[in-house]
Amino acid sequence: MAIVLFTDYGSGDLYVGQVKAVLQRLAPGVPVIDLLHDAPAFNVRASAHLLAAMVGPFAEDSIFLTVVDPGVGGARNALVVYADERCYVGPDNGLLSVVGARAIKGDCWRIVWRPEQLSASFHGRDLFAPIAATLAVQSGLPKGWYEHAGKLDVEFGGDDLPEIIYVDHYGNAHTGIRASGIPRDAVLAIGERRLSYARVFVEAAAGEAFWYENSQGLVEVAVNCGSAARLLQLKIGDGVVWM
Amino acid sequence: MAIVLFTDYGSGDLYVGQVKAVLQRLAPGVPVIDLLHDAPAFNVRASAHLLAAMVGPFAEDSIFLTVVDPGVGGARNALVVYADERCYVGPDNGLLSVVGARAIKGDCWRIVWRPEQLSASFHGRDLFAPIAATLAVQSGLPKGWYEHAGKLDVEFGGDDLPEIIYVDHYGNAHTGIRASGIPRDAVLAIGERRLSYARVFVEAAAGEAFWYENSQGLVEVAVNCGSAARLLQLKIGDGVVWM
Amino acid sequence: MAIVLFTDYGSGDLYVGQVKAVLQRLAPGVPVIDLLHDAPAFNVRASAHLLAAMVGPFAEDSIFLTVVDPGVGGARNALVVYADERCYVGPDNGLLSVVGARAIKGDCWRIVWRPEQLSASFHGRDLFAPIAATLAVQSGLPKGWYEHAGKLDVEFGGDDLPEIIYVDHYGNAHTGIRASGIPRDAVLAIGERRLSYARVFVEAAAGEAFWYENSQGLVEVAVNCGSAARLLQLKIGDGVVWM
Repeated sequence: MAIVLFTDYGSGDLYVGQVKAVLQRLAPGVPVIDLLHDAPAFNVRASAHLLAAMVGPFAEDSIFLTVVDPGVGGARNALVVYADERCYVGPDNGLLSVVGARAIKGDCWRIVWRPEQLSASFHGRDLFAPIAATLAVQSGLPKGWYEHAGKLDVEFGGDDLPEIIYVDHYGNAHTGIRASGIPRDAVLAIGERRLSYARVFVEAAAGEAFWYENSQGLVEVAVNCGSAARLLQLKIGDGVVWM
Repeated sequence: MAIVLFTDYGSGDLYVGQVKAVLQRLAPGVPVIDLLHDAPAFNVRASAHLLAAMVGPFAEDSIFLTVVDPGVGGARNALVVYADERCYVGPDNGLLSVVGARAIKGDCWRIVWRPEQLSASFHGRDLFAPIAATLAVQSGLPKGWYEHAGKLDVEFGGDDLPEIIYVDHYGNAHTGIRASGIPRDAVLAIGERRLSYARVFVEAAAGEAFWYENSQGLVEVAVNCGSAARLLQLKIGDGVVWM
Repeated sequence: MAIVLFTDYGSGDLYVGQVKAVLQRLAPGVPVIDLLHDAPAFNVRASAHLLAAMVGPFAEDSIFLTVVDPGVGGARNALVVYADERCYVGPDNGLLSVVGARAIKGDCWRIVWRPEQLSASFHGRDLFAPIAATLAVQSGLPKGWYEHAGKLDVEFGGDDLPEIIYVDHYGNAHTGIRASGIPRDAVLAIGERRLSYARVFVEAAAGEAFWYENSQGLVEVAVNCGSAARLLQLKIGDGVVWM
């Protein structure tokens, strides 16, 4: 059992520590793992696809506390989503719709509980963290905290997203395309560039751009001994197509 | 019980891990929470105000290990400050004076103990961490480690600080002004700019700068769907005034 | 007992969280400490010297999971190195050769075990993390997982490295030279610049560059109230010499 954090709060910024303060108070002793705090800021769709690709290594009893929430303070609701044994807490803005849509079995609950003190801009600390902590220490949420929502309304669906969804600090660019169904002789086009497949970095020539199946199972654009993002001028949201 | 870290050591840098090595050795099993490691570097006054705004969500038995310490290696002393049940360990340079001055009840102790090996530049690891760890695992410090200092000498006092004290990774600029006493029709001036109040981001027009009460209870300058720091050219230390 | 992480995965990037997912599953309850995730990227030699300087404060039963591995997916092997009671897991590319060469007593094992699912690019998660977790919860690795390698093949050896090996976020530049053997009247030359010794920052004039013994025991180049990296245009790999 662990609470796993996935946010765009910034890994060096002052928000994550306050979320952990709440978790420590309400679920002392439950391990907290930082999965990612630099999810694509304000970009719910890219974040939703990235999250879906990253949950694989986690134990099935993990509780994911997920916040990419540009509409905080507005009318959007809070959700608890069960998807193939794993449990997710987050805003009802599509962030959980990719994991939801790809699950073989799942369920969804709308949270109607609100804390006594709810800031307008930090629901990760004030709303989502108490829900995740409560799920971690109790067998379920208290009566009156939730309404059964049934099937998750899947804003983005479970299909692949043929766009750049993340650029890592090496300059590798992750797409929202799952690599398992892609033939290895397929050519990936980004703007005017055409990229062939390589199994691994050391098989490509130094400075050469290629695509490969990354460790999250996604098609990724990379350059051996270099930065694909810089060489190809890539940024989150850029489209890619197969030739 | 947890040890909470507040420093300017840099969240990605090599210092925090060594502080945690000491805590793990001397206080094994005590949770350690990273509150902030990118406190305004060398800026004790801004850091002191930021710290005071961020301790609210933490349990009362938390021990705060706080280091923003440009004078490390010089003559400044080490302090243990009790302020309204919470306990702080840090340098005697004003960093703890805002929490101290605002506390209803408090106490202060000067640390006279020194470790056998004390580096000239890393008292966070060598001096403050052993003190915090000892406080976490014992009912108090050993005799001979401290002198009672009584009332904390409050360099900066507890008043609001009408300056930018922090800029987050979204570009929002936090001031040292507590928002609870500010009427919502007040106009905030930064240089030539005049900013009105909005309750929440989604109530402001896209691209518009405004002030609001942030989740730490501070007046913050923000831009909906944008970076206030970039739009208004803000940096830590810039003054603000009410019109 | 703790598992200590030393990598170039990036402190804000998406890799560390997945390593922790594996550790949490295979070694639940074992503390995990982030020592450094911004080790010099792709630079095995500088990272090897930096690692050797940073292990001192850790308890002797610590298990170091170390990954700076530009050759991932190629033919290099995985190692478990024992050096003066401490235990290290990492790639056989020289990263562990400085700690190995400086140890008074040591031993080395080649790992022949491979997981069922081994990605081409993320051995930190798929290969090294399971080894470290297994070492943390068992008295040794299962039979058949390893071959005794005896003396570590020390690519880089234990001698000092007269180069910049790290630049911290303050702009201080760490060299690979251990300061204990350096007379305090020695003058350090970097390009055309000549630097004298100061015991501590506050003893140097503001804006003045100097060298000192840093908290890791290394010779470091610094500027009081400034950035040595910016003032002297320093970067990792730059050579230094004594005059």
